[in-house]
Amino acid sequence: MTVREIYEKQKELLNKEVTLQGWIRNHRKQKEFGFIDFSDGTDFKHIQIVYESALKDFEQIQKLHVGCSIKVEGKLVPSEGKQDFEVKATEITLLGDCPEDYPMQPKKHSREFLREQAYLRPRTNLFQAVFRIRSIAAFAIHEYFQKNNYLYVHTPLITTADCEGSDQMFKVTTLDFNNLPKDEDGKVDMSKDLFGSLSYITGSGQLHGETFALAFQKIYTFGPTFRTENSNTKTHANEFWMIEPEISFCDLNGLMDIEEDMLKYVVKYVLDHCSDEINFCDNFVEKGLREKLEKLVNSSFTRVTHKEVIDILKKSKEKWEFEPSYEDDIAKEHEKYITEYFNGPVFITDWPKDIKAWYMKANPDNKTVAAVDLEVPGAGELMGGSQREEDYDVLLERAKSMGVDTDAINWYMNLRKFGGCVHSGFGMGFERLIMYLTGIENIRDVIPYPRTPGNCDY
Amino acid sequence: MTVREIYEKQKELLNKEVTLQGWIRNHRKQKEFGFIDFSDGTDFKHIQIVYESALKDFEQIQKLHVGCSIKVEGKLVPSEGKQDFEVKATEITLLGDCPEDYPMQPKKHSREFLREQAYLRPRTNLFQAVFRIRSIAAFAIHEYFQKNNYLYVHTPLITTADCEGSDQMFKVTTLDFNNLPKDEDGKVDMSKDLFGSLSYITGSGQLHGETFALAFQKIYTFGPTFRTENSNTKTHANEFWMIEPEISFCDLNGLMDIEEDMLKYVVKYVLDHCSDEINFCDNFVEKGLREKLEKLVNSSFTRVTHKEVIDILKKSKEKWEFEPSYEDDIAKEHEKYITEYFNGPVFITDWPKDIKAWYMKANPDNKTVAAVDLEVPGAGELMGGSQREEDYDVLLERAKSMGVDTDAINWYMNLRKFGGCVHSGFGMGFERLIMYLTGIENIRDVIPYPRTPGNCDY
Repeated sequence: MTVREIYEKQKELLNKEVTLQGWIRNHRKQKEFGFIDFSDGTDFKHIQIVYESALKDFEQIQKLHVGCSIKVEGKLVPSEGKQDFEVKATEITLLGDCPEDYPMQPKKHSREFLREQAYLRPRTNLFQAVFRIRSIAAFAIHEYFQKNNYLYVHTPLITTADCEGSDQMFKVTTLDFNNLPKDEDGKVDMSKDLFGSLSYITGSGQLHGETFALAFQKIYTFGPTFRTENSNTKTHANEFWMIEPEISFCDLNGLMDIEEDMLKYVVKYVLDHCSDEINFCDNFVEKGLREKLEKLVNSSFTRVTHKEVIDILKKSKEKWEFEPSYEDDIAKEHEKYITEYFNGPVFITDWPKDIKAWYMKANPDNKTVAAVDLEVPGAGELMGGSQREEDYDVLLERAKSMGVDTDAINWYMNLRKFGGCVHSGFGMGFERLIMYLTGIENIRDVIPYPRTPGNCDY
Repeated sequence: MTVREIYEKQKELLNKEVTLQGWIRNHRKQKEFGFIDFSDGTDFKHIQIVYESALKDFEQIQKLHVGCSIKVEGKLVPSEGKQDFEVKATEITLLGDCPEDYPMQPKKHSREFLREQAYLRPRTNLFQAVFRIRSIAAFAIHEYFQKNNYLYVHTPLITTADCEGSDQMFKVTTLDFNNLPKDEDGKVDMSKDLFGSLSYITGSGQLHGETFALAFQKIYTFGPTFRTENSNTKTHANEFWMIEPEISFCDLNGLMDIEEDMLKYVVKYVLDHCSDEINFCDNFVEKGLREKLEKLVNSSFTRVTHKEVIDILKKSKEKWEFEPSYEDDIAKEHEKYITEYFNGPVFITDWPKDIKAWYMKANPDNKTVAAVDLEVPGAGELMGGSQREEDYDVLLERAKSMGVDTDAINWYMNLRKFGGCVHSGFGMGFERLIMYLTGIENIRDVIPYPRTPGNCDY
C-alpha cells in the first residue's frame, strides 16, 4: 500500500488496517505520544503517523531519526489535528537507519546548499514538486503527440552532421588522450576512432527529424541535446532535453496552431495532474503561478511580425538599454514589453533573414524568413520554429553563403529532390517549459543532475 | 485530411469530397485511366487514387513519377478493385517532383541496400511498420509506468560516474585534439575541459536512478545509452535506448512481477494499436509473429534458479558447444533450450556472484546474488535486473574487490546510510524489445540511424 492509494481511497480505507513503507520526514516526540511526518514518495502529500506509549518498543521508536526508512502497520483513523486522517500505528519497524547529522533536516535549506546535495534534494518538498511536474509534463508531451498520430523518432545522439554548427558541439572519442594516433602530417588520425571519423554529440535532431517527416508526415523527437556554450547563467545548461516536432504539408500558420494547441494541452494536463505540486510552487516559488498557467490555457495567442514588434517598441516611451532594430534580434527587455503589451503569449513571425538559420524558408521579400518565436509572459522565448526551405537551389545558395558543408549532408539536401514539400518544425527546450510551469528561475533546479561549465558532479 | 482519418471515418466520408497530400508510392497508367498507390505516412495502409482521361492535365498527371508529392482532390467512392474504397480524383496537383532514378522504386530492396539509404527507407512498407511499432511501443512503456505512478527521471548523459566501467564509455571533450593542453608532467590537462575534468557519455542511468527511487519510491528512466564495444554483430550497436526502472521496498520477486506485468502490457498495447504493422511483419519478416506475441501476453512466466537451469541442461541429452557450468553464464544455445523446455518466457534467478555486477545483493549463501535475467523465446535475454545491495559494509567490500572507485561515487554509497532500504531495478534494451516485436534480426534495422563500429553515417 502507498500513501497515494490512501489519499485516493480514503473513504473505503478509513478505520481499516494499513501497512506503509517510507521515510521519516519529521518526528515530534511527547511523553505519551509521538508524531511522525511520513512520506513514501508516491504522493506530494505526506501522512501523519501517531504512536502511543502503549506500543512495545515505544522508547526505541522515539529514538528514530529524520531520514530513517520504516515500515508502519496501523489503522487509518480520523485525525484530531489539521489533516483529515492519520495512521494510528500498531507497529513501527526500522528498515534503514539514518544518522543524526543527516543533511536533509526539516528546515529551510538554500537552493545552493541543495544543489550541492543533488542526490538528496529529491527528498525535499520543493524537489518532490519540481521533479513530479517534470515527469508529468514529459508524459503530457508524449500523450499530446501520440493522440494526434505523430511518430516518435529517436534521432541519433552521436553524429557527424549537425544543424547548429560543430563549434558548439562536444566531440566524442574512444581514443586515449595521452596516446593519440597521428597521421603522416602529424595530425590526430581520427580514422583510428571507433567510428573511423571525428564525431560529436548532437545539438539538435532536426535534420534527421525532417527525413522522417517526409515519410510519416508528422513526427516528434524528445531527447537530450548538448551545447558547449561556456556561459554560467541561470538559463544555460550544457545538457538539456528538447522536443522537436516536424510536420509535412504544414506552413508557418499551421505550425503556430500546433504550438499553441500543444502548449495549452501540456499546461492543462499538469494543472489537472499536479494540483498539490502547483499549489506548493504557487505558495513558495512564484506567487500567482496557478493563475498564470490557467490564464495561458484560456488565452488566445497573438500573432505579429517582427516588423510590427519593432514598430511597437519604437513607438513606446520606454528607455531601452538595447535600441530596437528592424535588422536585429529582440532583447529580453523587448520580449517582456511585448508580452505585457499584448497581455499574453505572442508569436513573432517573419524575422530578418540574416539573424536566422540557413534552413529557414525565405519569404518573397527576400529579406525575412518564415520563422516564428513564441514569447510567453514570464518566460521569454519558449519555442522557436520555422517553415523549412523546400526549394533545393535556394537552400543550396543560402547554405553555402552561411558556410555550411552541404556535401556532408547531401541526404538532407536531397529531401528537396525526392518528393519535397512545404514542411515546418519547431524546437522547445524542455527545461524552459519546466521553469515556466514551476516558477523556478535557475535551470540547475529543474534538472536532476545539471551539467554546466566546471560542473559535472555526480 | 489524412489517410488515417479516411480509414477511421470511412462510413461517414463515403461519397464525400476529400483532399489529401502525400506521396506517390506506385503509378499504373492505362490509356483512359491511371491508378496511384498513395501514402501520406499517417497510416500503414495506402489508398488508391483513380483518375480518368476526362481530367484536365491528364497527360501531365500520367507523367508523374514514383516519389512525387502531390495534392489530390476528389471523392471517396466504393472501389471495384480489391480495396473497399478509393478516391476518384477531380484534381491532382504536383507539389514536389521526383526524378525517374529515385532509389525507392516499388520493388523488393535488400535490407543492406536500404541501410545505405537510411534517410529514404522510412518510406518503405517495412520501415513504416518497424518505426511505427517503435514509436507506439515507446509510448506504451511511458503509459505503463505513468499509470502505475512511477516518476520519469532524466538521468544525466554526460557523467564522471558509471556503473558499467569507464573502459566501455565514450569520452566527451571540448578540447582540440590537435592542440591539447598539457600539465607539468606532460599529460593532457583535463582541467582545461569545459567541465574541468575528464567526462564520459553514460552506459547506464542506474546509479542516478537509485537516488531518485529512494525519494520517489518508483522511478524509471528511458533514454539513450552508449557503449564503445567494438563488435560488429547483429545485436550490438554503440548507441541504443534503454529503460531502467528502480523500485524501493521491492525485492527480487516483486521485481519479476513488475517485469512480467510491464512486458505483457507493452506487447498487448502494440498488438492493439499496430495491427496492420504486426500483420505485415508476420507475413514478410517472421512467420508466426502475431501468434508468438499473443501467446506471450497469455502465458505465465516460469521462475527458476540458475542452479536449476544448469541441472536441466546437464540432464538433457543435447550436445552442447559450451558445457553448462554452475559457475558460469549460460550460452545462447542454453537460453534457447530453456525457453523451449518451459515453452515460454523464463526468469532465471540467483546467479553466481562472480559473473555479476558489484551492486547486486548478496544472497545468504554468499555464492550467488539476487539477480534475474528474463529469457524470452526467440529473443534470448530481454531484461536483466537485481535486488541492489543495501548493506553499506557488504557493498563497500564487494565494490573494492571489483576495483570500483567508491570515493568517486560516495553519494551512491551514502544511499545505504541515509534511510536505505531493500530496492531493486532492471534494465531493458529498447531495441531488443523492438526486434522481438517485429521479428527483425538485425539491430541496424530497428534504429533510425544506427551507430556501429566504423559507421556514423548520416
